[in-house]
Amino acid sequence: MQLVSKTQCFDGTQCQYTHRSDVLDCEMRFSVFLPSQAEKDQRFPVVYWLSGLTCTDENFSQKAGAQRMAAELGIVLVIPDTSPRGDDVADDEGYDLGKGAGFYVNATQLPWKPHYQMYDYIVEELPKLIEANFPVGDRRAICGHSMGGHGALTIALKNPGRFTSVSAFSPICNPIACPWGEKAFAAYLGEDRASWEEYDATVLLSRATEQLPMLISQGEEDQFLEQQLKPNALEAAAEAAGYPVKIEHHAGYDHSYYFIASFIEQHLRFHADYLLAH
Amino acid sequence: MQLVSKTQCFDGTQCQYTHRSDVLDCEMRFSVFLPSQAEKDQRFPVVYWLSGLTCTDENFSQKAGAQRMAAELGIVLVIPDTSPRGDDVADDEGYDLGKGAGFYVNATQLPWKPHYQMYDYIVEELPKLIEANFPVGDRRAICGHSMGGHGALTIALKNPGRFTSVSAFSPICNPIACPWGEKAFAAYLGEDRASWEEYDATVLLSRATEQLPMLISQGEEDQFLEQQLKPNALEAAAEAAGYPVKIEHHAGYDHSYYFIASFIEQHLRFHADYLLAH
Repeated sequence: MQLVSKTQCFDGTQCQYTHRSDVLDCEMRFSVFLPSQAEKDQRFPVVYWLSGLTCTDENFSQKAGAQRMAAELGIVLVIPDTSPRGDDVADDEGYDLGKGAGFYVNATQLPWKPHYQMYDYIVEELPKLIEANFPVGDRRAICGHSMGGHGALTIALKNPGRFTSVSAFSPICNPIACPWGEKAFAAYLGEDRASWEEYDATVLLSRATEQLPMLISQGEEDQFLEQQLKPNALEAAAEAAGYPVKIEHHAGYDHSYYFIASFIEQHLRFHADYLLAH
Repeated sequence: MQLVSKTQCFDGTQCQYTHRSDVLDCEMRFSVFLPSQAEKDQRFPVVYWLSGLTCTDENFSQKAGAQRMAAELGIVLVIPDTSPRGDDVADDEGYDLGKGAGFYVNATQLPWKPHYQMYDYIVEELPKLIEANFPVGDRRAICGHSMGGHGALTIALKNPGRFTSVSAFSPICNPIACPWGEKAFAAYLGEDRASWEEYDATVLLSRATEQLPMLISQGEEDQFLEQQLKPNALEAAAEAAGYPVKIEHHAGYDHSYYFIASFIEQHLRFHADYLLAH
């Protein structure tokens, strides 16, 4: 693990690191925010943040203003990249496939399979690295935006024991039934649509046998709301399954980081209720 | 004035506009944040934010997280661009001269003179436009970062009656004696160094006959501190002149927006004390 940058932020430390990922077979960069160390040997809970299409580890770090509340609550933020990177990693000319668009799945199809194993990276490899190198405990929550909201919801629904809580801003709720998801899943997972359901929050939620606290925030002026995000599908599945999901619709807000910045305090306080519970 | 973008942010409105600037003889873009209108006919005070080298109106809007406090305090934020723009505007290949580097002066030299009149734009033309088109009163404060900190300090020192207060993050305090300032002032103002003093905060402060509340925040790990920013020169001038300046040095912080984000609440509360005073 190599330190790339480090600066003070809200009395804590905002850093970037690179590391060799065996799972992705490439070098990866991530950002991490550490609250100021209150006591020696203190171990903090972690919120993993998954970003959306075209993002790197920097968008959330620079634009969400999340460090203020993370510092106050005593939470570590871990912000991974959104895909494998490097010259020998397959890519597509579209912004919604390939680099910057890993969709948090394990690809089974060529040319994607050798590097695009983002699900395993986020669920297994990165937390091991974080827990071996930073003052964190075993309490984890997960949160994300858009494609990263899809990632957070699906990863939490598939691993409810690993997370205390999950939340999402403007998530792609039903990727098997929207253009972004159909394009990406066809490429990464192939034409067998049954295999896609393993990465669809609406399907996973309807089959869930274990529940965890879930908060979703959606802007009503989001340009992707109807065609790509489909929170109504998730809401209907939750109602049918008796799964308590708090879905909040906010008038006037769009898909941008201005929306995230406006409500990140609420999301971090939501996670803190579970992360810091005795 | 043309609306470019508009979204909700902290229950207020974050917008971008373009307009024809007669002073700069080009089309200009600026950003503005409006708190949610509490009462009909309410008029808000304004904080003008001046950005640093390479910035546009978007850096502060997206990275400082200032809207949260502006919404809470009931303050309008106006964020202009850092230079004239357009294909027929003179430029330089360096990041520290020409577009993105207007230095908030009125250029007297060719090829800069026809468009680089940023001082008049910020002091006269833009406030008139703002005050004619937005629900603002005549209480104004000014604040900025780096080159924009230099701009805020010099503009306030030259126009103490127009502003209730001034603050700066990591300002270029003594541009006539640092590489950034020497390069820019030689180009924009010519070789007569006496003319440069009109735009040097340290010189202006030592000659000030009227005082206004002034707050300066400086990170101790700022890579530009010694060679370019020179807050000690301003501090010495203030002490010699008996001008009360609050200069705060913060251990661990660098020149980035992470520093601004960490202390923008303090700066906006500082301005609010004067902007909202009865």
